[in-house]
Amino acid sequence: MCLTPVDEAYKTYKDELVAAGLLIPLGEPGVFGRSGTFEHIVDKFEEYVTRMGEHQNAEVMRFPPIFSRAHYEQIDHINNFPDLMGSIHTFMGKDAEHRKMLSIFERKENWSSELSPSRLMMVPAACYPLYPTATGTLPANGRTVDLKTFVFRHEPSEDPARMQIFRQREFVRLGSPEEALNHRNYWLKEGEKILKSVGLDVTAVVANDPFFGRGGKVMKATQIEQVLKYELVVPICSAEKPTAVTSCNYHLDHFGTSFNIKTADGNVAHTACIGFGLERITLALLKTHGFDLKTWPHEVRSVLALA
Amino acid sequence: MCLTPVDEAYKTYKDELVAAGLLIPLGEPGVFGRSGTFEHIVDKFEEYVTRMGEHQNAEVMRFPPIFSRAHYEQIDHINNFPDLMGSIHTFMGKDAEHRKMLSIFERKENWSSELSPSRLMMVPAACYPLYPTATGTLPANGRTVDLKTFVFRHEPSEDPARMQIFRQREFVRLGSPEEALNHRNYWLKEGEKILKSVGLDVTAVVANDPFFGRGGKVMKATQIEQVLKYELVVPICSAEKPTAVTSCNYHLDHFGTSFNIKTADGNVAHTACIGFGLERITLALLKTHGFDLKTWPHEVRSVLALA
Repeated sequence: MCLTPVDEAYKTYKDELVAAGLLIPLGEPGVFGRSGTFEHIVDKFEEYVTRMGEHQNAEVMRFPPIFSRAHYEQIDHINNFPDLMGSIHTFMGKDAEHRKMLSIFERKENWSSELSPSRLMMVPAACYPLYPTATGTLPANGRTVDLKTFVFRHEPSEDPARMQIFRQREFVRLGSPEEALNHRNYWLKEGEKILKSVGLDVTAVVANDPFFGRGGKVMKATQIEQVLKYELVVPICSAEKPTAVTSCNYHLDHFGTSFNIKTADGNVAHTACIGFGLERITLALLKTHGFDLKTWPHEVRSVLALA
Repeated sequence: MCLTPVDEAYKTYKDELVAAGLLIPLGEPGVFGRSGTFEHIVDKFEEYVTRMGEHQNAEVMRFPPIFSRAHYEQIDHINNFPDLMGSIHTFMGKDAEHRKMLSIFERKENWSSELSPSRLMMVPAACYPLYPTATGTLPANGRTVDLKTFVFRHEPSEDPARMQIFRQREFVRLGSPEEALNHRNYWLKEGEKILKSVGLDVTAVVANDPFFGRGGKVMKATQIEQVLKYELVVPICSAEKPTAVTSCNYHLDHFGTSFNIKTADGNVAHTACIGFGLERITLALLKTHGFDLKTWPHEVRSVLALA
């Protein structure tokens, strides 16, 4: 396989992370164990985000990496990003079907043909499991929720910042259009400040998501035109191909309509979120400041309360 | 559906947890969001386990909830627990196949027939992703690893302690037969002490895993006869049907052979682990001491360093 110089730079960085024991390769591209040091950085960055969001008095929720297939079917992901989805299948037969599957397995053929779809899907974005739980009427002034979830994207890659499974930490606002938009705008500025304060060379850009196929071209154009979603990008290994480490997204009434969420005055709720990509931020910090936390700049160590 | 009185007791407890906001139902049995309070208990219990295991100087690794299908195929899970597995499938077609899938989706038929198996599986136990990374020769005195992973079991249930996805915190030993067995025996005692010190009414029993099908009966008998795996059980809602909250397992050379792991002196490595079921322990604590952490017994609050 012939990599471009940019892709080569990211692959080289991955090899360095693996050699240093920060990432533990699990035999598939984009699937890694994390070392204690890697997790320590994630924890410290998260604690910083918690402190910066404390004034919101957000409800804390932590979601597992799977959610309901019925809910998945209501969020348009199958239209826009089918190639990234994860659908969980399992074995639902009896002894005879099991013997058949094992004989296929022993012949080293495709035994997964004997599986059936479960009622579960991998979570594609941290806040998707939230909206179905919010069906009904919001309290006056809406809700603010603090989330963390492992999310899945089927995109095998040699770029360590493009993992198939990683964690997003989010602050989500559900309320009036003004409340949602203010949240997006506040956190776009605040997110930029947070990332700059830990020494990351961050820029806000209008998002350009990889919508699928020919229909996706229209979606891409609409996304850019509507200016609903921003990404904070960092040139981890290349200024040519910077990495989105955080995104700030105003969903309009998309989830409010899909899951029948109303504001206290009876209108369809609008929603917005900021999502910090914890692995990508950690990878950007390690690239910017080096693998030895003791030698990180004093101000960064202080902001992150690194002992 | 007619539940037995025991099953009814567990379902009632689940309803209480949901009413108190400690668990957030996500529309499928055994799939929940966790509240901030729930996570606080998990964190505090984990910190306690970390302190109790500090003298081991274990390597810290944190795994994602997915791992390689090729590795899954080497661990016998497809033989023993096929009904619990999670196989991740995705869409690999182009525009035409996408249109076909969407038309099936719009007719509310089984669109998952259009998916293909990815190279990924859900992790069935926290330490499974570890062994393939340990292929080769261990250092003298082997290795001790501190793990945490979300694990998946397809077993929809109204029992809150029988989730489809939950976290295991493990200490794993790889080394000689004696090193592995000592680890299992040490942690069986120590695990019991830890759980008793937080006020749980715990008993050690020989494990009785739900091996699949007719062949499973032989496996069950062998498991009990060999006395390799113990479980620490707590009668969360019923003495008749207590819940395994922790397990201590000596795997003999099972993983050493499957993944070609050798000791420094060239023999096949033996392995053993203790796995704390973090959700189950938290559920046992909430049932035993109540939903208000401030009213938990002084000694328990002190051991867990609850502020």
